[in-house]
Amino acid sequence: MAIITLTTDLGYKDFYQAALKGSIYSLLPNVNLVDITHSISAFNVPQAAFVLKNAFPYFPPGTVHLVGIDSVYSERTRYLAMEYRGQFFVGSDNGIFSLMFQEPPSQIVELDIMQDLKFLHFPLTDIFAKAACHLAAGKPLSEIGIPVTELEEKVNLQPVIEKDMIRGSVIYIDSFQNVITNISKELFSKVQQGRPFTLYFRKSESISQLSWHYNEVPEGEKLCLFGISNYLEIAINKGNASGLLGLHLGDIVRVEFH
Amino acid sequence: MAIITLTTDLGYKDFYQAALKGSIYSLLPNVNLVDITHSISAFNVPQAAFVLKNAFPYFPPGTVHLVGIDSVYSERTRYLAMEYRGQFFVGSDNGIFSLMFQEPPSQIVELDIMQDLKFLHFPLTDIFAKAACHLAAGKPLSEIGIPVTELEEKVNLQPVIEKDMIRGSVIYIDSFQNVITNISKELFSKVQQGRPFTLYFRKSESISQLSWHYNEVPEGEKLCLFGISNYLEIAINKGNASGLLGLHLGDIVRVEFH
Amino acid sequence: MAIITLTTDLGYKDFYQAALKGSIYSLLPNVNLVDITHSISAFNVPQAAFVLKNAFPYFPPGTVHLVGIDSVYSERTRYLAMEYRGQFFVGSDNGIFSLMFQEPPSQIVELDIMQDLKFLHFPLTDIFAKAACHLAAGKPLSEIGIPVTELEEKVNLQPVIEKDMIRGSVIYIDSFQNVITNISKELFSKVQQGRPFTLYFRKSESISQLSWHYNEVPEGEKLCLFGISNYLEIAINKGNASGLLGLHLGDIVRVEFH
Repeated sequence: MAIITLTTDLGYKDFYQAALKGSIYSLLPNVNLVDITHSISAFNVPQAAFVLKNAFPYFPPGTVHLVGIDSVYSERTRYLAMEYRGQFFVGSDNGIFSLMFQEPPSQIVELDIMQDLKFLHFPLTDIFAKAACHLAAGKPLSEIGIPVTELEEKVNLQPVIEKDMIRGSVIYIDSFQNVITNISKELFSKVQQGRPFTLYFRKSESISQLSWHYNEVPEGEKLCLFGISNYLEIAINKGNASGLLGLHLGDIVRVEFH
Repeated sequence: MAIITLTTDLGYKDFYQAALKGSIYSLLPNVNLVDITHSISAFNVPQAAFVLKNAFPYFPPGTVHLVGIDSVYSERTRYLAMEYRGQFFVGSDNGIFSLMFQEPPSQIVELDIMQDLKFLHFPLTDIFAKAACHLAAGKPLSEIGIPVTELEEKVNLQPVIEKDMIRGSVIYIDSFQNVITNISKELFSKVQQGRPFTLYFRKSESISQLSWHYNEVPEGEKLCLFGISNYLEIAINKGNASGLLGLHLGDIVRVEFH
Repeated sequence: MAIITLTTDLGYKDFYQAALKGSIYSLLPNVNLVDITHSISAFNVPQAAFVLKNAFPYFPPGTVHLVGIDSVYSERTRYLAMEYRGQFFVGSDNGIFSLMFQEPPSQIVELDIMQDLKFLHFPLTDIFAKAACHLAAGKPLSEIGIPVTELEEKVNLQPVIEKDMIRGSVIYIDSFQNVITNISKELFSKVQQGRPFTLYFRKSESISQLSWHYNEVPEGEKLCLFGISNYLEIAINKGNASGLLGLHLGDIVRVEFH
């Protein structure tokens, strides 16, 4: 059974996500709908990008990912569908796709399945659901839109790299209050070259040991590790790192190699 | 695969909604269970009615909607199943159905599939799940209850209409903090007759322009539009209308036509 | 279609539960994934045990329950799969299974499907998902691990029983703010022997009547009953018992028989 996943800021208490599901089942009764999450903060494109970027590689080839975030119609709005690494994505061209993908999608179309976009009522049911069901049914991208070559560019804040130092920033706090930075394992290894390091954050906090598991330090003590997302993460074993260490979205961290 | 939807105030953290799902799968393994929401405020029948009323039309014919809200047994309680516009509804006769439907259901039965209701433990698993699975399996309403012609009447607060004015009230605040009134698009158009209007709310706020999309005004500015629910809605483009405009459930709004 | 249920503390806003679902669908496309809940408090094994213990009996034989709580790798960690009363359970040997089961599982294995556990990244996708899909596909326990006879023992706080008295404690507050104690219906009946009783809690509160339904007392009044979980529960009809009566997790309650 084909899979359509949903990533939205619609929440769980209103009827909006249910309407979206109903409209999909009405078009394609035999589909497997999976909530990535409906708890993205309202209009928060970078947060949605982070969540879906880390989730989609776990899904099987052919999965269709519907992204319903910041997709209200305006004259500049383009609604897109695309193929990337064997999976499909449908959403608004608001920068989310450039934030998620490492190379350009193999095929992109601008959806033309609705005559007059100006009278769109609810883009998620009126357009995205139709495009997602078309793709989940195994039909080609080219039938629902016209080819496009460029995506709206949004750029994640990149770490600053020097010979002996990486300066990065906090890009996500998860529900365990683990603090995730934008320093990837790949970048870290490349600059580290096997040298010892110290990670500095806030005024006077530091960590010089990389853990593999959260519980390699005693409960309540801080650690750093490459978490499930493969980004450098600051955590407290069974504790609230964001709260106890005073680390928030956007805060700067610094890794020095000795 | 048949669809059963769930609308309850059971929440997501306890075992109650999971028990309901397990009992349905035990009776009917091949069914597609869809959460409308389990986040209805405890016992809030009007809120559940608003959510399901707006969600169910998106679902395909034959869908069964199980409504688990305010359904504890008492001597006056009737448990019902009914058909309305080609879909089925199962729930307690606490007024929710009269709040949702515009005309009477085509068929209503009072469930008689349990001997002694007094010893009901958990109506959602003991009765509603059985009735919903019976209907989702395509079997007739008449086999699970005795015909009933009247529903418990609860009436939504209706707008007051004069020749040049509609006075309505706030009936729902969604998770984006948009403020939804009880003035339908249909009613608005009927009274408006093409005339200009001003919408007044709180002491001194007003809006004289109807938007089609949230982003027709600059970010942070107020607007009104007919939202996905087709009711007049007061919003702030990418902002918290309820909080910033001080509008709450039950507050009065007034539309004057010039 | 086989059922795999998920009980975790991963929450709904991050990508973790979605990654788990994706990894399961990648291994076993035709499976029915059911969220028991992802809202267990972080690392709270007793809470997870209470929720799943009460939910699993509603599921059909052969259901596989994946428990993702407190399962970070350490040298003492054992990852297990087992059969209990015709259903299957996969999780970490952290005491949760002894808290849930009344008799020993009929078969237990320690999972050996991964070479070097030390390099586990995310046990839920790397091990639990594989074991759960193996079992959901109807394959034998013995193929994924080596037999084990003993579980890590954690013991629920048991009520103290005297001839005319049971002293118990509050083990769960549900989302209606009903207060659930560790005094089971079975234990209560055995000690009661048909005698009248008084339930005492806080300094001066008492209830001497057992209700069958929440609404047997007027709205806003306190009552006690055996709830859906079959444990003695203190509630307020349509009210917040925990808040209004000041009852919290771990508080002592006392039943005296006259």
